Amino acid sequence: MKSFIPVPEGSDFPIQNLPYGVFSTKDNAKHRIGVAIGESILDLSVIAHLFDSLSLKAHQDVFRQETLNDFMALPRAAWVEARATIQKLLRDDVPTLKENLELRAKAFVSQKDATMHLPASIGDYTDFYSSIYHATNVGIMFRGKENALMPNWKWLPVGYHGRASSIVPSGTPIRRPRGQVKPEGAAEPTYGPSRLLDFELEMAFFVGGPATKLGQPIPIEDTEEHIFGVVLMNDWSARDIQAWEYVPLGPFLGKSFGTTISPWIVTIEALRPYMVENPKQDPAPLSYLKHSDPFTLDINLEVTIKPDGGTDHSVCKTNFKHLYWTLKQQLAHHTVNGCNVRPGDLMGSGTVSGPEEGAYGSMLELSWRGAKTVAVGDQTRKFLQDGDEVNLIGFCEKDGVRIGFGDCRGKVLPAL
Amino acid sequence: MKSFIPVPEGSDFPIQNLPYGVFSTKDNAKHRIGVAIGESILDLSVIAHLFDSLSLKAHQDVFRQETLNDFMALPRAAWVEARATIQKLLRDDVPTLKENLELRAKAFVSQKDATMHLPASIGDYTDFYSSIYHATNVGIMFRGKENALMPNWKWLPVGYHGRASSIVPSGTPIRRPRGQVKPEGAAEPTYGPSRLLDFELEMAFFVGGPATKLGQPIPIEDTEEHIFGVVLMNDWSARDIQAWEYVPLGPFLGKSFGTTISPWIVTIEALRPYMVENPKQDPAPLSYLKHSDPFTLDINLEVTIKPDGGTDHSVCKTNFKHLYWTLKQQLAHHTVNGCNVRPGDLMGSGTVSGPEEGAYGSMLELSWRGAKTVAVGDQTRKFLQDGDEVNLIGFCEKDGVRIGFGDCRGKVLPAL
Repeated sequence: MKSFIPVPEGSDFPIQNLPYGVFSTKDNAKHRIGVAIGESILDLSVIAHLFDSLSLKAHQDVFRQETLNDFMALPRAAWVEARATIQKLLRDDVPTLKENLELRAKAFVSQKDATMHLPASIGDYTDFYSSIYHATNVGIMFRGKENALMPNWKWLPVGYHGRASSIVPSGTPIRRPRGQVKPEGAAEPTYGPSRLLDFELEMAFFVGGPATKLGQPIPIEDTEEHIFGVVLMNDWSARDIQAWEYVPLGPFLGKSFGTTISPWIVTIEALRPYMVENPKQDPAPLSYLKHSDPFTLDINLEVTIKPDGGTDHSVCKTNFKHLYWTLKQQLAHHTVNGCNVRPGDLMGSGTVSGPEEGAYGSMLELSWRGAKTVAVGDQTRKFLQDGDEVNLIGFCEKDGVRIGFGDCRGKVLPAL
Repeated sequence: MKSFIPVPEGSDFPIQNLPYGVFSTKDNAKHRIGVAIGESILDLSVIAHLFDSLSLKAHQDVFRQETLNDFMALPRAAWVEARATIQKLLRDDVPTLKENLELRAKAFVSQKDATMHLPASIGDYTDFYSSIYHATNVGIMFRGKENALMPNWKWLPVGYHGRASSIVPSGTPIRRPRGQVKPEGAAEPTYGPSRLLDFELEMAFFVGGPATKLGQPIPIEDTEEHIFGVVLMNDWSARDIQAWEYVPLGPFLGKSFGTTISPWIVTIEALRPYMVENPKQDPAPLSYLKHSDPFTLDINLEVTIKPDGGTDHSVCKTNFKHLYWTLKQQLAHHTVNGCNVRPGDLMGSGTVSGPEEGAYGSMLELSWRGAKTVAVGDQTRKFLQDGDEVNLIGFCEKDGVRIGFGDCRGKVLPAL
């Protein structure tokens, strides 16, 4: 399948991808919904009238909103139809848009002329902890090899509520946080800039479908109706603040100074060709967490660090398929108590680490809590320095088709 | 000071209170902003044009919104002016509203004809853990007397991010959650309805003022500009779900099945006469948490339980002044890392327990983890039963003036 819009070799955004985002331009500050294609954006607000399928004809207004929430709130059938419509409109052998030069002139914007915004108003943000390699690594460092995994870890997808207000789109600088820390051996805590600033390589899915009612769980067989799409997420972490504050109620200010997501939501429909067998789970999960259809995503992941004035250097390569718990299991668990979810809610995977050393998704693990250094070009790091720019990279590849997630960048500013 | 609207003896809502809420009526489903006075509601959407003070004249539209967020987003000077305007309009010796019978007929609604809604769209919800008696009680039960308080507890107001979507107004029934639990001694966890359902007596404040920027802490001396007002809050808890899930990332599904708030926000201005000296803090807090002005609220608190078909029985009496950390310290701590806050954010106090046994704010403490029974009329309880309706009561009293918070009720429905 080919688009009449040029898609350079190796682009994240061929016609097989079609991720949704929200953008504005210099000459039009209004936030609009767009779809990435090659190096362009198709402005859906301009072509809203062309969505004439069964589920969308009466809802064309969702494409004229300033966030994706209303579109996400439609049932999954509408998402499938919207993708089919967009893919058709962009095909080289379909004249509707291709040959309507007047409409084309209005409908396309160059990505380099656009500013990307958060794709949705995020009502609630949850972060899971679903990589067994990450949980084991952290467990060994803080509790020793014998007690690495907590007794609950293999029985349920451990997670916690995060801060929604501090989620920002790629490109937003992150200020090194100040806070209270208690260095090992110190008699009393002190207040100052965090010294152990870290990234966490994660992915996150946006909830879609009509808002659920409080008291009404989503059975695991219905979870797919509520999983809209996936982004990259850097769950920036201040390890020293976190270590002192987190007992007994969990991470708080060690996380809430900033969380970066990639602005393009890659839909489950686009990711379907890259689903692989789920990891074997032992013990077998309880009934409400059981599903056998493959819903594990084969997504190549990488982290780069660019020292101030330097270039991107890879520090970690891993894969999203290393997640122990599937997105379906996460959502079924989250709602089993009757917790309601709303379109636009964001659910993070937890740090994605793979089994080998170079596949660890945080400096905490890569430097093994500061015990060794990590090469960043001709420099070394144990944790992040001011001026470092971290980027996350994600892409799927199969049968000659490659789809990617775009940038998930953030530069560390010095503490105030 | 007296209003021309009758205020029955012992009412929560004399002219000294004037709390804000959002209501609708049978014949007008639109959500409107109102102020409680006696047994009536003054509909601010009807008298918006009468707010003609300096900070409000250009912002009368905030009183025509469906939530309080826009009004909360104005600077504190505007809140003070709004209160002064409303108080003046309601005075018996001021003719403006009193003698405009046509306007009066439109502007007042009986509380018994109104349905109350959430007063604001809550962007983020945080729950602190600021009662030393509660933290000590829980600590003794789970870790023994020697290690009752965690080392960080007296250094910082411990808190965690909660779930905003499941916050509901008084009167909303709460479904007993299902979930995963692992009874003591069991080899494996099981899935089923929670058996240890509990209330938590809390208060919570709404954040006001313009949204802050990510990376910009609120210094403690500016925190009052961002504390709009206070409500009662029942942080329903499933102790068995919580015990199994909460290590290491904190409470999650043991809380997110429902959180009830009273619908009337009592403002800081109304509460000012009831501020008393802050508790002595030892060790002295770090610089960013230091303030000497009294900001501890003397609010009498009570919990009642009404068994199915029965009447309200008191099970706990305590006072909000028992909080170790002040609301100012909570907010300064929350933002010290640069976390941004938005008008409408909600910050819970944590369970408010007092020093004596009858002053414990949860069944967990009252029944000492089920070791003893609690009298509820002629029945007994260790935890909550299906059909129990819990209410929280709060009021301040001084110099012959009493202001209260109204109901914060919720009835337990059986698990699905």
